[in-house]
Amino acid sequence: MILNRINIRTEKKAEFIDITTTVKKIVVSENFAEGLCSVFVPHTTAGITINEAADPDVVKDILGHFEKKVLHNDNYLHAEGNSAAHIKALITGSSVTVPVKDGKLVLGTWQGIYFCEYDGPRSRSYFISLI
Amino acid sequence: MILNRINIRTEKKAEFIDITTTVKKIVVSENFAEGLCSVFVPHTTAGITINEAADPDVVKDILGHFEKKVLHNDNYLHAEGNSAAHIKALITGSSVTVPVKDGKLVLGTWQGIYFCEYDGPRSRSYFISLI
Amino acid sequence: MILNRINIRTEKKAEFIDITTTVKKIVVSENFAEGLCSVFVPHTTAGITINEAADPDVVKDILGHFEKKVLHNDNYLHAEGNSAAHIKALITGSSVTVPVKDGKLVLGTWQGIYFCEYDGPRSRSYFISLI
Repeated sequence: MILNRINIRTEKKAEFIDITTTVKKIVVSENFAEGLCSVFVPHTTAGITINEAADPDVVKDILGHFEKKVLHNDNYLHAEGNSAAHIKALITGSSVTVPVKDGKLVLGTWQGIYFCEYDGPRSRSYFISLI
Repeated sequence: MILNRINIRTEKKAEFIDITTTVKKIVVSENFAEGLCSVFVPHTTAGITINEAADPDVVKDILGHFEKKVLHNDNYLHAEGNSAAHIKALITGSSVTVPVKDGKLVLGTWQGIYFCEYDGPRSRSYFISLI
Repeated sequence: MILNRINIRTEKKAEFIDITTTVKKIVVSENFAEGLCSVFVPHTTAGITINEAADPDVVKDILGHFEKKVLHNDNYLHAEGNSAAHIKALITGSSVTVPVKDGKLVLGTWQGIYFCEYDGPRSRSYFISLI
């Protein structure tokens, strides 16, 4: 297995950062022809997902939905004030797995891989595994 | 790795299609004895999940819940009118990973693998990776 | 691939059980140096997730959110009375995938792996795949 750690700086409280280009570059630079690519986030208030990368409004609508449905203040017990971010991280998931064929990620036309920040801004990282 | 692409035609706006039999057939026809089976959807308004395959009412209840909680019209910015489907796809996830042992998927008694259509009817596809 | 089945007894209707120590022990006892660790739940009213393991209030807040947002009674069709648990299982997901490097799970400082019971108490199990 090939494992790469990528560092990333988020700039907002909540944002989706398109990391597709970075993941594709790793697949190419590692000369990885075929297998699975798993992207994993080692945080508990951030997630990884795949969704539309063409129209940036899609991501805004997703973040807007989360903002309305997972309230920032809701009589939470956790004293750090970021329980909403932990809940959003659970809903999003901590990894995605994408097939690789002929040296390329088998992504659909509209798909992009997103690092999902729910409690930024922070210095973050994610791991790309090729197997 | 063995990679298969399966085409599928959805018939409704929103429906879960049980693809368990198809995935099992691929495991058998590829003589795949042991490893992981990953099912991936290359779309941004569809997902893949595992849930009860015995009583079809379970899937109806899941779709009913989504219909109520992720509103079709909610002042979304995305002009295509399918932001709700993008949100449901994020919540569902784009892949599932199931162990394979002795040539069989290690699924629980009640589990089935579902292709989750949230913006149909459409011609769709999914990928089965065996590794 | 190395595949282990672990049995677990849940004690409450809904609870998150931290299984990180068990998963780490399997990685060590199998002398597994590098690859991916996939944890899979063969149930349809339970899930697997990764979230904060330091403050137990985080898990309580997640369960409290689910309790409020996915109603136990909501005119469901499924006659067994556990549709809410099936919905929560879908939202949570049936597996997590974590990289392993130098014989250790590449988990973040605050991350723990949780078995998520939504319809207990029951005798349950989960599978740990190392590949």
